[in-house]
Amino acid sequence: MASLSERTPEIRRDRVFNRHVILSPARARRPYDFKSKSPANPTPPSSTTQCPFCIGSEHECAPEILRFPPNTPNWKIRVIENLYPALRRDQEHNFFTNPDPNFRLSSVGFGFHDVVIETPIHSLHLPDLSPIGVADVLLAYKTRIDQLRLHQSIKYIQVFKNHGATAGASMTHSHSQMIALPIVPPSVSSRLESTKAWFNETRKCGLCNIGSDEVSIDKSAHFVSVVPFAASFPFEIWIVPKVHCCHFHELDNEKAVDLGGLLKLMLLKLSKQLNDPPYNFMIHTSPLDIATSDLQFSHWFLQIVPQLSGIGGFEMGSGCYINPVFSEDAAKVLREVKITS
Amino acid sequence: MASLSERTPEIRRDRVFNRHVILSPARARRPYDFKSKSPANPTPPSSTTQCPFCIGSEHECAPEILRFPPNTPNWKIRVIENLYPALRRDQEHNFFTNPDPNFRLSSVGFGFHDVVIETPIHSLHLPDLSPIGVADVLLAYKTRIDQLRLHQSIKYIQVFKNHGATAGASMTHSHSQMIALPIVPPSVSSRLESTKAWFNETRKCGLCNIGSDEVSIDKSAHFVSVVPFAASFPFEIWIVPKVHCCHFHELDNEKAVDLGGLLKLMLLKLSKQLNDPPYNFMIHTSPLDIATSDLQFSHWFLQIVPQLSGIGGFEMGSGCYINPVFSEDAAKVLREVKITS
Repeated sequence: MASLSERTPEIRRDRVFNRHVILSPARARRPYDFKSKSPANPTPPSSTTQCPFCIGSEHECAPEILRFPPNTPNWKIRVIENLYPALRRDQEHNFFTNPDPNFRLSSVGFGFHDVVIETPIHSLHLPDLSPIGVADVLLAYKTRIDQLRLHQSIKYIQVFKNHGATAGASMTHSHSQMIALPIVPPSVSSRLESTKAWFNETRKCGLCNIGSDEVSIDKSAHFVSVVPFAASFPFEIWIVPKVHCCHFHELDNEKAVDLGGLLKLMLLKLSKQLNDPPYNFMIHTSPLDIATSDLQFSHWFLQIVPQLSGIGGFEMGSGCYINPVFSEDAAKVLREVKITS
Repeated sequence: MASLSERTPEIRRDRVFNRHVILSPARARRPYDFKSKSPANPTPPSSTTQCPFCIGSEHECAPEILRFPPNTPNWKIRVIENLYPALRRDQEHNFFTNPDPNFRLSSVGFGFHDVVIETPIHSLHLPDLSPIGVADVLLAYKTRIDQLRLHQSIKYIQVFKNHGATAGASMTHSHSQMIALPIVPPSVSSRLESTKAWFNETRKCGLCNIGSDEVSIDKSAHFVSVVPFAASFPFEIWIVPKVHCCHFHELDNEKAVDLGGLLKLMLLKLSKQLNDPPYNFMIHTSPLDIATSDLQFSHWFLQIVPQLSGIGGFEMGSGCYINPVFSEDAAKVLREVKITS
């Protein structure tokens, strides 16, 4: 590996999102020096006073959709409606189908915005759970997706987690969110176009056999974790199923436990190496109304992005990110972090 | 106008960027209540100690490219190299042209990264300058673009300004930046695809006659300022030439003064209404190597985005933003702000 002083900037293109990134270590500290300046949980609160997500405060929340285990006050996970939903679930509507393009520019804000409370205990965070505990959260996503995809109008479901205020979390109690949309949103459309073009040119899915360009961190029985070759963000991680699979909701119990362990490990490594940074994770899956047989080019994965730096006008204007840590260097750091359980 | 309590969320599609946005006032404060919680300049520093951008400290900067007026120590504007460039100007390279797609994934980081120092005086910000002073900054961009576009390898030039630390500015002295790229970056490619599709369907440029959907704020002789119909960010503003024009660098002196006045007015209105928020502005122009006659669908404009809220996992995953202020409400607020000069 070249030392930092020898490294010159490089422009890379991501073949999944078809985005360029500028890897530019001249602006960087050394890869081992990256730490969050604003850790997400400097003092994890132990008091549950006034947290509606804590066990015993269910009556302060918006309506419950499901809980695990069902029919018990001693729940481990609850899926509830968001008290301040971005979309309304009571206005199902056919959408953007007018033949006049001027009328395809707006529609009512129909959709579902749910919250997944990952634990009844306020002081625990997702990676504090056991691999089976994390798996149960993943299976709660799957169960709720299986309900939501029965709605003909729902085209895509975005599962995401915001951890820490600067990553967008307004509640400190560990939770994630799901927004079910009546559209295929812009990043998903462009990802599908990009992966389809790659497939048509190479006859290969760009995420099967990942690891030739991407840099491996760890692996489990069914998943690999890598820093993508053209990472847009420092220490960005992708967790990818080894075998081609287009929809997250095909996850079975065995794979959920396997993924739970690897996701837990990656979150612990980021927390240890980067001083408990705020982070987001996003599940990138395929639209619901495309048959699996037509999706040889679309491979679902989970993306984790620690929030170490903001974005500026260059990124907003061009869509091209400047990443101060080469993917190879970030992966080496993350491979070498030791987690003792 | 419907009151906030009557408003239901709406999904809108922007016909320039082909991005969806969710306008969702349920999550919002009232439009008049939006203020930056972290103003960019709570106490504008007057001391110039240790600021290399101040007049008299030129020797602490990276090499100068040009100054206005030329050949005088009493400069008003300087364009200099960035001391920590994201790209290297000494490695001109033909790019991403290999017939094997696997070899089109990376190249050396060739490009130009310049800084435009907008004033010699540390305590002044861009909207403190006269309309002619702002025009001179715009004309400095144009002059530098005219130099950079002589390089055959340069395909696109992103002009942008970061004001305030949370908007990405590392220096408080008023400045903007220009990055000249050997690629057409991702947001520009998708903008061109989107505007071309709109033109092919409607036989109209989506930005000529702006104002039928977008909501007008102000206008000058040659420009209009609007909140776009599908604004991704609260109080986002676009300043658009009234007459079709594909490249920013076609700006002449008369239009520069006219634009300078309107840009100054918009920045003063944002500052007054939103408590001096950090902001970015970006000039969205056309790639350099496409003939003007082929760009009937590509209309340059300037986008201003005040930084009032961060982005979370939903936006990162889907590319779809949740905007808590309806475009019509933001435009009304900005129309009504009174600036006394």
